[in-house]
Amino acid sequence: MTTPPVTTTRAPAIGWQLPPFYCPIEPAVHPGAARLEARAIAWVDEFGLYENAVDRAWGLATHSTDFSCRIIPHGDEEKLLLFILWNHWAFALDDNVHDTGSAATTTAGIVDFNARVARCLETPGAALLGAGPLTAAFEDLVGRTRAATTPVQFRLVTEGLRDWLFGAAWQAGNTERGIMPTLSDYVAIRPSVNGTRFSLAWSLIAQGIEVPGDELYSDSVQALTDVAGSVVSYDNDLFSYAKEDSQQTLEQNIVNVLAQHHRCSPQEALRAAVAVRDRTMVLFLRLREQIARSAGPELLRYLEALGHYIVGSIQWMNAAPRYASPRNRHIVPVPGASWNITWRDTPTDPSTDPLPVPAAAWWWKQLAT
Amino acid sequence: MTTPPVTTTRAPAIGWQLPPFYCPIEPAVHPGAARLEARAIAWVDEFGLYENAVDRAWGLATHSTDFSCRIIPHGDEEKLLLFILWNHWAFALDDNVHDTGSAATTTAGIVDFNARVARCLETPGAALLGAGPLTAAFEDLVGRTRAATTPVQFRLVTEGLRDWLFGAAWQAGNTERGIMPTLSDYVAIRPSVNGTRFSLAWSLIAQGIEVPGDELYSDSVQALTDVAGSVVSYDNDLFSYAKEDSQQTLEQNIVNVLAQHHRCSPQEALRAAVAVRDRTMVLFLRLREQIARSAGPELLRYLEALGHYIVGSIQWMNAAPRYASPRNRHIVPVPGASWNITWRDTPTDPSTDPLPVPAAAWWWKQLAT
Repeated sequence: MTTPPVTTTRAPAIGWQLPPFYCPIEPAVHPGAARLEARAIAWVDEFGLYENAVDRAWGLATHSTDFSCRIIPHGDEEKLLLFILWNHWAFALDDNVHDTGSAATTTAGIVDFNARVARCLETPGAALLGAGPLTAAFEDLVGRTRAATTPVQFRLVTEGLRDWLFGAAWQAGNTERGIMPTLSDYVAIRPSVNGTRFSLAWSLIAQGIEVPGDELYSDSVQALTDVAGSVVSYDNDLFSYAKEDSQQTLEQNIVNVLAQHHRCSPQEALRAAVAVRDRTMVLFLRLREQIARSAGPELLRYLEALGHYIVGSIQWMNAAPRYASPRNRHIVPVPGASWNITWRDTPTDPSTDPLPVPAAAWWWKQLAT
Repeated sequence: MTTPPVTTTRAPAIGWQLPPFYCPIEPAVHPGAARLEARAIAWVDEFGLYENAVDRAWGLATHSTDFSCRIIPHGDEEKLLLFILWNHWAFALDDNVHDTGSAATTTAGIVDFNARVARCLETPGAALLGAGPLTAAFEDLVGRTRAATTPVQFRLVTEGLRDWLFGAAWQAGNTERGIMPTLSDYVAIRPSVNGTRFSLAWSLIAQGIEVPGDELYSDSVQALTDVAGSVVSYDNDLFSYAKEDSQQTLEQNIVNVLAQHHRCSPQEALRAAVAVRDRTMVLFLRLREQIARSAGPELLRYLEALGHYIVGSIQWMNAAPRYASPRNRHIVPVPGASWNITWRDTPTDPSTDPLPVPAAAWWWKQLAT
């Protein structure tokens, strides 16, 4: 490879050195990662998910296997494989349909596409999507997922995918209208854009975690789920900043949202973004500990899974060429590219007060006083 | 009232006499309907849901109480009241935001609004909606619904509302793009536009029906749910045809979809529409009977509830001035207005073959051969 190292390319507005990450959670990775990756690559090649060698290289640069095996470090390999394949498909979809950054993509078109995807998942054979590798891969996933899951688990997948599509449509609508969301709007809806429920559905399924519905859907556990999704989302915003800074429209992320909010530069907003993220992380740890005190055994496993979702996402993005050698700066992904992040033991903002954002207040209210 | 009777106003393309309805299901109405209606009217007045006396008259002309008490003829009155209030709110929303028939309404705007609604339901206090009576009424409903339901029941409400918003956005996207859906697309997505899952969530909640998840989300029961939603949707299309035939864009309904499909007039398409509807109804009855043979007691209650959903909707729309004295033809609703429908004992199309539509094939596949 003759591609220059990351640091010699045009720096993003927030620089190449991300602030140290506060995440006191032990990382882990599924022991089957290597063989799962080989199987995943065979699958994407079988379906010709990528049009050419360069697209294929970028598809593999998502490190979908590493992502999946870090956020789900235990559990059934066959189900974990399905999640890996779903991620390959979802990244291809995201880059080709949802988040192209083009103002020419209409929300109406995306909503129509999303409705087709959601319904084809729920109704086998509905054939609402045009022909092509992305559709063929999707149909394969739908059939295998249905076969591998119980009805309740399958419902988690369908609702999780719908939630992610719902977030993607919202983001596209803002792009079309040239709107940078307010901080409150962004905090409220960002976990859906990230596909939080979809990833966590698979974490439950692959690990065989069966939290009773009235525990899983209780206020505090739902709040904690959104809080975890928020931390992962903000971290994703930092790792994605460079990747998306040459789009036609200014990308919606926590840095740009705060730059608008505080009327400052992205570089100045970075500190505020990390503060928001760290306060959310502090809440996650406190609320999780509180819930754990009275949790049943399956809920305890879910609380553990949420932790892996956060730390696994950081570890993955740090070393995924998709983020560490972004495509808007590199013709092909750089093997071994890394953000080389550092860590810190304390939050940058130790405040345990609720963020001054209506959408987040309810999360903090779950804390026993 | 000096408003002329329906039959002297401009006739819709499909006429004022709807073809006889095939629906061999015994109707029923909740015994508390009268006192519930009084309470519902007090609520809409308390919140000033309607801007003026004329809007208020049209709001009451939705007969939301009659609808709710017919599709849920048994069960807890307090929870049924909540469903009635949700319907008042939803009709106001539909007429003011979603289905105005104006091409100026953008999908991006609707998607943004929907995201706010969905999130405000899930996250109390998120305050993502502007001030106003519709918001105040919504916040009241959110709080009361949360207090009256278990976490699993509340999840049914949130997912049900999301499904309805998802359908509304799809419809709006077609309007914006000037697209009349193909028959297959329409059949696939129409149950969501109708809010099927939302209404049935409330049917489960008010009647205290607790179907085990793996039964409720089994293929055959989900197919049956979509089939019931389809019948109700097509019936709604017939009763709504006149109401929406003066909009800026041609309304998406089963008649206009089939007129496009067969390249014929709406009047000619009406017969095909009833055939599609009746074949779907025949499937409903056969599949319901099949499922009942091995159903547990709670699932049996749900199967009963689906029947009430179908027959109750017909009875309600037949006599609701919203449909029987449509606003595009009457300044104020006509008291006692009725479509005066008739009934038939057999389907117009007795075929038990699957509709030649990919999206529907899976429904018929649920029948044991």
